[in-house]
Amino acid sequence: MDCFFTFVSATNLAFIVLTKNQINFITSLQRKAIRAENNLFVVEGVKMVEEVIQSALKIDSIYATSDWINANSSILFSFTFEPIIVSDKELQRISSLSNPNEVLAVCVMKQTDFSVQKCKNRLTLFLDNIQDPGNLGTIIRIADWFGVQNIVCTTDTVDVYNPKVIQATMGSFLRVNVLYKSLDTLLKEANLLEIPIYGAALNGENLYSTVNLDKGIIVLGNESKGISNEILKLCSTKISIPCFSTDSNSGPDSLNVAVAAGIICSEFNRRNIKMNE
Amino acid sequence: MDCFFTFVSATNLAFIVLTKNQINFITSLQRKAIRAENNLFVVEGVKMVEEVIQSALKIDSIYATSDWINANSSILFSFTFEPIIVSDKELQRISSLSNPNEVLAVCVMKQTDFSVQKCKNRLTLFLDNIQDPGNLGTIIRIADWFGVQNIVCTTDTVDVYNPKVIQATMGSFLRVNVLYKSLDTLLKEANLLEIPIYGAALNGENLYSTVNLDKGIIVLGNESKGISNEILKLCSTKISIPCFSTDSNSGPDSLNVAVAAGIICSEFNRRNIKMNE
Repeated sequence: MDCFFTFVSATNLAFIVLTKNQINFITSLQRKAIRAENNLFVVEGVKMVEEVIQSALKIDSIYATSDWINANSSILFSFTFEPIIVSDKELQRISSLSNPNEVLAVCVMKQTDFSVQKCKNRLTLFLDNIQDPGNLGTIIRIADWFGVQNIVCTTDTVDVYNPKVIQATMGSFLRVNVLYKSLDTLLKEANLLEIPIYGAALNGENLYSTVNLDKGIIVLGNESKGISNEILKLCSTKISIPCFSTDSNSGPDSLNVAVAAGIICSEFNRRNIKMNE
Repeated sequence: MDCFFTFVSATNLAFIVLTKNQINFITSLQRKAIRAENNLFVVEGVKMVEEVIQSALKIDSIYATSDWINANSSILFSFTFEPIIVSDKELQRISSLSNPNEVLAVCVMKQTDFSVQKCKNRLTLFLDNIQDPGNLGTIIRIADWFGVQNIVCTTDTVDVYNPKVIQATMGSFLRVNVLYKSLDTLLKEANLLEIPIYGAALNGENLYSTVNLDKGIIVLGNESKGISNEILKLCSTKISIPCFSTDSNSGPDSLNVAVAAGIICSEFNRRNIKMNE
């Protein structure tokens, strides 16, 4: 029976008690190694799972309360598997959230092709060792807003499929590709292709008055250490967001990396509109 | 003996085992009502406590590992109280962090005067019901970077002295005043004083092409609901950050509120430099 909900209304379904193995498997997907091994990850919450269903992302399984299944029976018609009804207590046991929200989907990781050619005449973000899941998630959301299709990360950057990253993207992980590569190899190729590479650094050119902000690669570094020296050397321009702190003796050290990403992407887009006017 | 460390080196001090009452009191400061009742809050971690010591903020007590006290004996000379040496295990018990970092200070809340007059010809942020502690902390850090001295919040906004807010400010709470007031009363006064009021909204004027961005009040709203209708009505200009998403059907709904705050503060400062050139 491929299409369960064409025959049986969810209200008639009995609760299926999840086995210990099922619970262990779903919670084990909170670990990067297990996700990689199974090519699966978890998306939670009403809004995000509904976006997943409407996207091209392949879903492996859905665990939801009977309320959610009843409310969504119309969109569940096309499913080739049976969503599993869980109690609130069971949802709590499989969820990574402190307040689980009705539904959890186990999804198949997407595969994305990438070549440096794709960075020509468009904004691409390169992330060097970003550690905080909230920061990566917020950067993916910023990329989505500012038309950045690809984010390339060093392999020591936090995993995009970490549940906290997925939650912080607010669904933007569906529209932005996130890849893990050796950045220095790609940056050397980009230099050969004359793609501009901007490194966000504390001692760079003033972002507002940098003469050329032609679209290219923007590199952002680790929360406390910034961009590593090896990668910074490969940037054609270092850019900085000017500080306007009123305290000249002991002002702030830096901006949050996601906020910096937002300000820089905004300025590139603003300038490129102006140039096209 | 007022100045303990002038007489006794920390290496000679015995560990004082914290009483259950002391532990309960410090952890109870994670709750807003207890903080308000005692006018006290907690700052944690080496970097931030060192900034607190060098600031004008009054410290009530310090709990630290012997390593930290030995490393900081020179700056502890001026203290009028004895820092309390704790074991790593005790620090773990009183800390709100999953990985406590050597030192915890109990500090006295600062009092700040505020009048709407202070919003004339300078940037001030008004926050309507911001709920996420990380967002408020990041907005305080942004304010510090962009020379915003005062942030005024609705009383239902998350408390600035919440430990997660304090941690996310990275020390900027020392340089930015955060007050809790009825925003509509203040906005009516600001209108009478002809102070411009900009409300960040999804259907406002394009931030990049809004003709006048004279310094004034910037209002930012709740993470999911935005600015409430009552407050939005009092804004003289609604402004929006243009979306450049490549997906015209199902793009992102919004930017994170702290990222939006960063982009808007950046644009105001950029324009005001240009105007003064």
